[in-house]
Amino acid sequence: MFPHRDLTGIAGLQPHEITFLLDEAEHWIALNRGGASKHDGRLAGLTQINAFFENSTRTLLSFEIAGKRLGADVVNMHAATSSTKKGETLIDTAVTLNAMRADVIVIRHDASGAVQLIADKVDCPVLNAGDGQHEHPTQGLLDALTIRRRRGSIAGQVVAICGDVLHSRVARSNILALTALGADVRVVGPPTLLPPAIERMNVTRHTDFDAGLAGADVVMMLRLQRERMAGGFVPSPREYHALYGLTPERLKRAKPDALVMHPGPMNRGVEIASSVADDLNRSAITEQVEMGVAVRMACLDVLTRGRRGIEGWA
Amino acid sequence: MFPHRDLTGIAGLQPHEITFLLDEAEHWIALNRGGASKHDGRLAGLTQINAFFENSTRTLLSFEIAGKRLGADVVNMHAATSSTKKGETLIDTAVTLNAMRADVIVIRHDASGAVQLIADKVDCPVLNAGDGQHEHPTQGLLDALTIRRRRGSIAGQVVAICGDVLHSRVARSNILALTALGADVRVVGPPTLLPPAIERMNVTRHTDFDAGLAGADVVMMLRLQRERMAGGFVPSPREYHALYGLTPERLKRAKPDALVMHPGPMNRGVEIASSVADDLNRSAITEQVEMGVAVRMACLDVLTRGRRGIEGWA
Amino acid sequence: MFPHRDLTGIAGLQPHEITFLLDEAEHWIALNRGGASKHDGRLAGLTQINAFFENSTRTLLSFEIAGKRLGADVVNMHAATSSTKKGETLIDTAVTLNAMRADVIVIRHDASGAVQLIADKVDCPVLNAGDGQHEHPTQGLLDALTIRRRRGSIAGQVVAICGDVLHSRVARSNILALTALGADVRVVGPPTLLPPAIERMNVTRHTDFDAGLAGADVVMMLRLQRERMAGGFVPSPREYHALYGLTPERLKRAKPDALVMHPGPMNRGVEIASSVADDLNRSAITEQVEMGVAVRMACLDVLTRGRRGIEGWA
Repeated sequence: MFPHRDLTGIAGLQPHEITFLLDEAEHWIALNRGGASKHDGRLAGLTQINAFFENSTRTLLSFEIAGKRLGADVVNMHAATSSTKKGETLIDTAVTLNAMRADVIVIRHDASGAVQLIADKVDCPVLNAGDGQHEHPTQGLLDALTIRRRRGSIAGQVVAICGDVLHSRVARSNILALTALGADVRVVGPPTLLPPAIERMNVTRHTDFDAGLAGADVVMMLRLQRERMAGGFVPSPREYHALYGLTPERLKRAKPDALVMHPGPMNRGVEIASSVADDLNRSAITEQVEMGVAVRMACLDVLTRGRRGIEGWA
Repeated sequence: MFPHRDLTGIAGLQPHEITFLLDEAEHWIALNRGGASKHDGRLAGLTQINAFFENSTRTLLSFEIAGKRLGADVVNMHAATSSTKKGETLIDTAVTLNAMRADVIVIRHDASGAVQLIADKVDCPVLNAGDGQHEHPTQGLLDALTIRRRRGSIAGQVVAICGDVLHSRVARSNILALTALGADVRVVGPPTLLPPAIERMNVTRHTDFDAGLAGADVVMMLRLQRERMAGGFVPSPREYHALYGLTPERLKRAKPDALVMHPGPMNRGVEIASSVADDLNRSAITEQVEMGVAVRMACLDVLTRGRRGIEGWA
Repeated sequence: MFPHRDLTGIAGLQPHEITFLLDEAEHWIALNRGGASKHDGRLAGLTQINAFFENSTRTLLSFEIAGKRLGADVVNMHAATSSTKKGETLIDTAVTLNAMRADVIVIRHDASGAVQLIADKVDCPVLNAGDGQHEHPTQGLLDALTIRRRRGSIAGQVVAICGDVLHSRVARSNILALTALGADVRVVGPPTLLPPAIERMNVTRHTDFDAGLAGADVVMMLRLQRERMAGGFVPSPREYHALYGLTPERLKRAKPDALVMHPGPMNRGVEIASSVADDLNRSAITEQVEMGVAVRMACLDVLTRGRRGIEGWA
């Protein structure tokens, strides 16, 4: 059971609730791999609005495919053509989407907290598809699912989350999900790209890349988000790669069978060397994308059960 | 019955035809408010093309949701990516959409008359989603429906349409619909933003805001469209608000239970004060959005009846 | 039968395979012309991704309508909002689309060969919707179908492909399809806009427009693509029209009942005079658009038969 109307973040979820969503996602993997039909009609007649105030091809595609496979009427609202350009407030946009009687709203926004602001104003479930530097909960879930499937479990796994942790909502949602499920999480990166007081999130902090990788079961590289670094020090791609790029050499510090992950899109040759990204024995990068669709189907299904009159669901 | 193939404007509709469309829209409100399924399959197998040559998030969303809830195959053509950028004429675009065997085409264009130009070249029903400063008939209908539901009737209601009437297709469609149904319509605004000879549309003209509001049953504020004022006097938002912004003080001139409306998106603090917009006892702004989906479902349904082989429909 | 997983070009197809696709397309014309429903559910449950890295309204609309009429879940990926802007490689994008378990991917790209590059990396059928100056196979098929229907057959027809042949993937796919089916193809244009050694494609070369048109059964005009001529000589529209524009005068050189074609969007008054384009006895331009939807439905159907478990299909 899942007693929340919205999924605005991993924060606030109990470990068994996270596990429940992962278990639900497992059901959808087989359907997606089937050839003849990937359709399940359980969201038929429901309206899913993907309100993306920030561009994101792969996350939008993933949510759109998830909703359509479940039979929902999916409509996309693109920021570039949105009324927000005409000076409308975010709350007015939220109220408008609500008045159109959406059944579930998926939101991406470049401001932390914008998703909660909208969730507070609408009557239907809201799914956070990434807000500012706050959270990206379905990314956290899909990464957890990938680790669970490839490593057998999450508890006890040593996971090194490496790179630009400071600007990364992906890192934040992953830290929350993985520590809740008992992983031993390290954050690794240059001091300027690690949040102060990150230790409070029950992680260990490493500014030495080699030390941070030592003995890791999972090496999760983050995208270097140079576009978010206005005002601070912006490393050149070349120097960043020399110091914090994952190369085959570097990867030897981790366990011999360590899993390599990246949320994409990758800057090849910057935070990750192509030879590492393309090593199919080690890299789970495309599997992460696949798990993304399954996780989003699970979240859309679970959050709309109440509206679909399924007993016991709010 | 509705003897027109297209809905390019309120002009040309008989009062009983307007009422018929409002009555049809009433049927869809309950479906949209239902939880388990908002689907009605009557447009299944028909192709609805939303050809938007001008950006408009909320109107496009509303038409897209309306079509999908009716089961149509809905495709959007965005101006920004359109062949018109390659120098294609509007008529060639129309002929192209027609050759793809669209069953209904919804058009928004920044030029007055562009919708009729397209309608003349195609074989299927055309719905005007706003053309230049000409008409926006579904907005006129949804506003009429909102007034009818909240005030019990339209006939005899004193409706003050306030602000930038000159640039407003919303005002034009509303004046046509509301006067046809027997309302007593006033236009209120600065002299430079009222069309010359507007009295010919059976409205009274007020340049004094307080006098225009006196005793009104409905106060319909218009968006200040500064982007359309090139070449003329452009008021600053602050001075506009001082002279023609709807404040709680100003609203006292209207009837004590007067309804406040706005087609959105709002410029809060310009044509309308936030405290007025957010007063749920008075403001029907979100209800207007909801009625929009119902009205568009009604129009899509009614206009395609002939194509669906329903007897007695052209 | 059609033994290919992908349709990346006309090159590589046997004449009977081209004919097979045209025959299949014939089936869809009647459905598209039907009033009550244009739906056929055979692609229900399959996911069609339209990955357009280059803008193209009409081709995208045509593929989207084709897929939706077949019941597929159709999602569009627009380049303008795509991860490729964030520096992702084309191959990473391909691998991502594949991991989402697409059942068919339709690709348009401004680089020749990009579609094959993607096809090599994915597990599902790939349809080329135009890549650089390479091929646009569905355009070649729809033009062949139009000629076959209007002229009774393709074999023996004298087809003059006129204008900017050098930059035209449309010309290339047409030459391949029409020569394979036995047409007598001429390319006609200014020397700078004809590819060197074009005769190797079994066509005759004419730089004199009048001589090239003499006795033609079909006059296929190409769009002047000034945007692709960077670095070379760019003719002015006026001088191009004087030398290579199809006027009623010029058209008299062709057979009295010669068919006029253009892939659109047209530059009226440049490569074609309006009076010629609009002469419905001669011009097949809107019929080409209609055949486009039918051809794309046929290709989507045929290429996905294997995935749908239809016996004997790969």
